[in-house]
Amino acid sequence: MKYSFISAEEAAASIHNGNTIGIGGFSSVGTPKAVPAALAVYAEKLHSEGKEFKVGLITGGATGSQVDSALVQAHAVAFRTPFQSNKEMRNAINAGEVQYYDVHLSQIGQDVRYGFLGDIDVAIVEASDITEEGDIVLSTSVGISPTLIQVAHKVIIELNEAHASKLTGMHDIYIPDAPPYRREIPIYRVNDRAGSISVRVNPEKVVGVVRTNERDRIAAFTPLNDTTSRIGQNVADFLLGEYQRGAIPREFLPLQSGVGNIANAVLGALGADKKLPAFSMYTEVIQNSVIDLMMQERIRFVAGSSLTLSDDRLDMLYDNIDVMKERVLLRPQEITNHPEMIRRLGIIAVNTALEADIFGNVNSTHVLGSKMMNGIGGSADFARNAYLSIFTTPSTAKDGLISSIVPHVSHVDSTEHDVRILVTEQGVADLRGKSPSQRARCIIENCAHPDYKELLWDYLKLSEGKGCHTPMSLRNALKMHIAFAETGDMRNTKFEM
Amino acid sequence: MKYSFISAEEAAASIHNGNTIGIGGFSSVGTPKAVPAALAVYAEKLHSEGKEFKVGLITGGATGSQVDSALVQAHAVAFRTPFQSNKEMRNAINAGEVQYYDVHLSQIGQDVRYGFLGDIDVAIVEASDITEEGDIVLSTSVGISPTLIQVAHKVIIELNEAHASKLTGMHDIYIPDAPPYRREIPIYRVNDRAGSISVRVNPEKVVGVVRTNERDRIAAFTPLNDTTSRIGQNVADFLLGEYQRGAIPREFLPLQSGVGNIANAVLGALGADKKLPAFSMYTEVIQNSVIDLMMQERIRFVAGSSLTLSDDRLDMLYDNIDVMKERVLLRPQEITNHPEMIRRLGIIAVNTALEADIFGNVNSTHVLGSKMMNGIGGSADFARNAYLSIFTTPSTAKDGLISSIVPHVSHVDSTEHDVRILVTEQGVADLRGKSPSQRARCIIENCAHPDYKELLWDYLKLSEGKGCHTPMSLRNALKMHIAFAETGDMRNTKFEM
Repeated sequence: MKYSFISAEEAAASIHNGNTIGIGGFSSVGTPKAVPAALAVYAEKLHSEGKEFKVGLITGGATGSQVDSALVQAHAVAFRTPFQSNKEMRNAINAGEVQYYDVHLSQIGQDVRYGFLGDIDVAIVEASDITEEGDIVLSTSVGISPTLIQVAHKVIIELNEAHASKLTGMHDIYIPDAPPYRREIPIYRVNDRAGSISVRVNPEKVVGVVRTNERDRIAAFTPLNDTTSRIGQNVADFLLGEYQRGAIPREFLPLQSGVGNIANAVLGALGADKKLPAFSMYTEVIQNSVIDLMMQERIRFVAGSSLTLSDDRLDMLYDNIDVMKERVLLRPQEITNHPEMIRRLGIIAVNTALEADIFGNVNSTHVLGSKMMNGIGGSADFARNAYLSIFTTPSTAKDGLISSIVPHVSHVDSTEHDVRILVTEQGVADLRGKSPSQRARCIIENCAHPDYKELLWDYLKLSEGKGCHTPMSLRNALKMHIAFAETGDMRNTKFEM
Repeated sequence: MKYSFISAEEAAASIHNGNTIGIGGFSSVGTPKAVPAALAVYAEKLHSEGKEFKVGLITGGATGSQVDSALVQAHAVAFRTPFQSNKEMRNAINAGEVQYYDVHLSQIGQDVRYGFLGDIDVAIVEASDITEEGDIVLSTSVGISPTLIQVAHKVIIELNEAHASKLTGMHDIYIPDAPPYRREIPIYRVNDRAGSISVRVNPEKVVGVVRTNERDRIAAFTPLNDTTSRIGQNVADFLLGEYQRGAIPREFLPLQSGVGNIANAVLGALGADKKLPAFSMYTEVIQNSVIDLMMQERIRFVAGSSLTLSDDRLDMLYDNIDVMKERVLLRPQEITNHPEMIRRLGIIAVNTALEADIFGNVNSTHVLGSKMMNGIGGSADFARNAYLSIFTTPSTAKDGLISSIVPHVSHVDSTEHDVRILVTEQGVADLRGKSPSQRARCIIENCAHPDYKELLWDYLKLSEGKGCHTPMSLRNALKMHIAFAETGDMRNTKFEM
């Protein structure tokens, strides 16, 4: 071992008040586990002595509770970027305790390298192995770890022995050069290798290695229900129709699919439909359903930035590791989400909306325009550059008290220009080539819940009275949101005529 | 000549009711001139006989009055995409007579090839020359003409003798293959050539060649005023600061600049500041000021999709044509605006906003959320993928009756995630790494007009009272727009407390 082993407490003590910390990992896996917890304890100790201690936290994407919960509960976070999906962090962001910068996940790595977010004082990354030369073999995710290791002044490595020797060879680490003179990203098919299997680190920067032996804990998904199943089926039926009419090439196109239940339902439906060929995935997060479909030979190959798998699926992967290393690649999120790659490969992107409006604008992040849920993540990286960008949402939320289809979204994350297909359990709206008035008709007719159709038609009628390109009534655009905020039920909306 | 000459009237008579017509050209130049006018006359004749005649119109970008005005005044347009900047067309769109599909200009070419907009029945393109082999040398713009020529069932060529033999060699025609298996776009420096100098056409599709001899007429820009000059100077000062602190590489980065007065002011200020090195442009539209700065050796090289030049600047170009052919390239808009290229080259993108909100969302298209101005154009192609995306706007419009900085834009074209720097004549807001609350303070302080600062601070205070990530008051978000719509002056805004 080229580096010295140290305790998590020793590692934490190398971090100072006001530091910017880069935390490795992605989608709650492959994140360091021991040092953030020790850092939280260290922060609380300093606070109890009346000393200030807060850090800025830059990650690849979501982290587990070992990072966000621990550090937020210790009131040790001043700044957070680019994504989180953690209850305590979310509350702190919405309380204004943590300043949160919500960025496209393809951009955060280059933002760090370009110096837009200042210096990274300390990087903390999880390794599954360290080579004799001292190179880091990452664990179950890549995220922006290679960039953090490259630019941070100090590097703390957690060596997680739970993955020892399993993952070597599954990573493909490539970081683009700086502009203006650089070559293309040398990936032309989903399974092309562009980089190395490990990350070189300047040994002088390594604070030490902390041993751990703990698998990632991922949140359980609730089982599919009728609504999510119907959404999945609607997506599959739509893609089959496009495929059969020749609008998707014979080889099919690589698929990107977001995270969560709807994504699982979409994959399940695509996998079950044998009229579609087996396909490849070029995606961000590799979920359980991907492994299932690989075992059934419905997914040929997957490239992503994290193995966000439950224990049984990780076991399944490890039990078949020799074959799986030919069929799975883990890449930096800058590459999995890169506009160059998504456009070149012709990705079909399926992402989830929090709400959509009748013109096709999508809100992915804000409840009632103000409360942050998680962040934009990679949804717009994919939607903006995809061959086909599909957004899905159940037509209602909160047992029908909220319509996910509204006259005017309270916040926009993907604009009408980037949303080609909208799918709810009610049906599919194909927005390509349609004017706003035509889109509104198509979405109300096909996607809105019956409880809300009349309300939405009323809005459209009163707005169209004014005769403009996009029928919008300034006085009524947010009335459905106001009705929910003030009465708890969007069905109580009263438009001003 | 491989093809037969025909009259504009004969050409027009080959077009049928319900056809989708692809019109060549970009940014009002290099568009066909005789056939659209003849088509308008033909349509009016059919209408007078009680016959239906309407077509769908797909262009590269804006067309001159010879196309949009002529055909709209003849009530011959049912559908229009992807961009226009013509008064009669705008009125028809806002009256609901023409269904308008507003798309990113990098995408319309591939949308056509992918078949998303149905068949192209007839393409009408302007040539400056036709080679012995029958290949088309385009004229002062490229736009999506190569794609239209490739996919249309019939092709009508206008041979514009006003440009005879002048432009041969200035075009670089490259169309990407179809996914999923394709290579990179082989451009690694702004001046790399990727394609051919002319466009091959299947001779069997050529209806005939119509002779013309007429230069493009471009709208005169109003002279710079104090506001636009200060915006230009603010952008130049900001970029100089970034350059001097090392956040922009020593070679500088290729610049993209939108169309119009502010773009001219920005270029003028960058050109005048000798502390910045001479730079290259990778842009959409080549305006007068670019030629001026090339003559002064402040711009080294420019690649764009159109020479949108006044007569004197076109003369200047033609007078120096041998040198200029080494320093100017005309490419398809799919390449000038391509996410792969913009991200690879590290473009600095400067585009104009119609309005921006205090969180950094930008409206580029809609007045009061409903009335279409022109279209999104390439602004989001560049902003989304740029090294630095800068949006500019005067802080007020209509002599101060409208604040361009509002609590909540009435329409979103570039989201808070894609707007890094906001500039008005009042100053510069650097939004990188800032939470919504921090951005709001930064924008109100630096960019808002003094007449509106107190109003915006009031909004921020009342919204922050609720304690969420993005301070938004549903009841007040659009109150400034409502005040203007109902009283003609945003300063009459009364917020509900």
